[in-house]
Amino acid sequence: MEKKVRVIEIKENVFSKNDKEANLLRSMLTKKGIFFINVMSSPGSGKTTMLTSLINRMKEDYRIMEMDVDIKSSLDAQRVADATGVPALQIHNCGLCHIDADMTSRAIMEFDVKDIDFLILENIGNLVCPAEFDTGAHKNVMLLSVPEGDDKPLKYPLMFTVSDLVLINKIDTMDFFDFNLDLAKERILKLNPRAKIIPISAKTGEGMDEFVNWCKEEISKIKAQ
Amino acid sequence: MEKKVRVIEIKENVFSKNDKEANLLRSMLTKKGIFFINVMSSPGSGKTTMLTSLINRMKEDYRIMEMDVDIKSSLDAQRVADATGVPALQIHNCGLCHIDADMTSRAIMEFDVKDIDFLILENIGNLVCPAEFDTGAHKNVMLLSVPEGDDKPLKYPLMFTVSDLVLINKIDTMDFFDFNLDLAKERILKLNPRAKIIPISAKTGEGMDEFVNWCKEEISKIKAQ
Repeated sequence: MEKKVRVIEIKENVFSKNDKEANLLRSMLTKKGIFFINVMSSPGSGKTTMLTSLINRMKEDYRIMEMDVDIKSSLDAQRVADATGVPALQIHNCGLCHIDADMTSRAIMEFDVKDIDFLILENIGNLVCPAEFDTGAHKNVMLLSVPEGDDKPLKYPLMFTVSDLVLINKIDTMDFFDFNLDLAKERILKLNPRAKIIPISAKTGEGMDEFVNWCKEEISKIKAQ
Repeated sequence: MEKKVRVIEIKENVFSKNDKEANLLRSMLTKKGIFFINVMSSPGSGKTTMLTSLINRMKEDYRIMEMDVDIKSSLDAQRVADATGVPALQIHNCGLCHIDADMTSRAIMEFDVKDIDFLILENIGNLVCPAEFDTGAHKNVMLLSVPEGDDKPLKYPLMFTVSDLVLINKIDTMDFFDFNLDLAKERILKLNPRAKIIPISAKTGEGMDEFVNWCKEEISKIKAQ
């Protein structure tokens, strides 16, 4: 019994320390007028393709930087840098299943962020662990892709609860999978009534304008503070 | 520096304790003539659909039990039980990102396993954490689904390294995604030259016979010991 309580205390300490660091990072970025999003999803939901499309639509008007977390490879940062021309940093998290505010802060120090409007973190592909750690981002954005199924909010509830924006990706493949869009939306909103949901196809571009507009509005809000 | 070393020691202790428990469970099951597989994948790769198809193809000739790990929901065990009629147990792992040998052993105690030939664990949807914990299974089986992309072995290498059998699922959707089957196989075999790879579609049944035959052979090997 005592052992159980001790474990809980350790966990709370880890999270409370992380929350402090996350709040510190967030207010530092707000002061600099930098909007920071943390992008999460399962492996293979299309984060990198979506971010490449997003950055290419915004890079003429905003100064953007991208950070990519992966266990070992540098594929994603390279793909983003090659396809967009914006600076991208690959973070290797050495087999961990998440990234926390301290790791994010250290990665941001690698960048010269003083001339940036929009900072993007592509988190590791995982619907469980990243949901538990505040990275210091202003907004959490998650991708749920059609081939994964409309039951994911029931199975990974915390991820949907902590996400401000849910992009339902690969809607161009809707005909080939049993995915009920209304049911998916209903399940997400039941967990998180304030979540904004945008169906997109990063491949065809459908829905990307609405997502770009959301980013622009959020950037304006940060700049106005 | 000292702190770093201490963290590593704790991690090693956790894994070495788990390895002992896993070996104990594995030899206990071998003695009873029960073949035990641990099925892993990303969320939405089709584990439950595949297992339902597998069990329905084998349940006339083998006594099968299924255990399902999920953070909170009981959807998958219910789906398997409804679709196959075999006993299924839902394990709620309370927000953890993996299941270890101790959790598996405790779940197995819930079953009366003395009259079983084939025990199946559907692990939590996650390509990172479950790869680190030996569950006591005789074989690790993983699903990589076509919509996730052929780069997953590069990004989640440990999962592919610890898997004895890789099922490449949803091959009926190959025309709609940029997935190079030969490249995927090459990447898997580079990490794990002894891995067996079977392309399947759990939906259409393609490749399922080969998977069933693999299971039958492995069951015979356990029974012969």
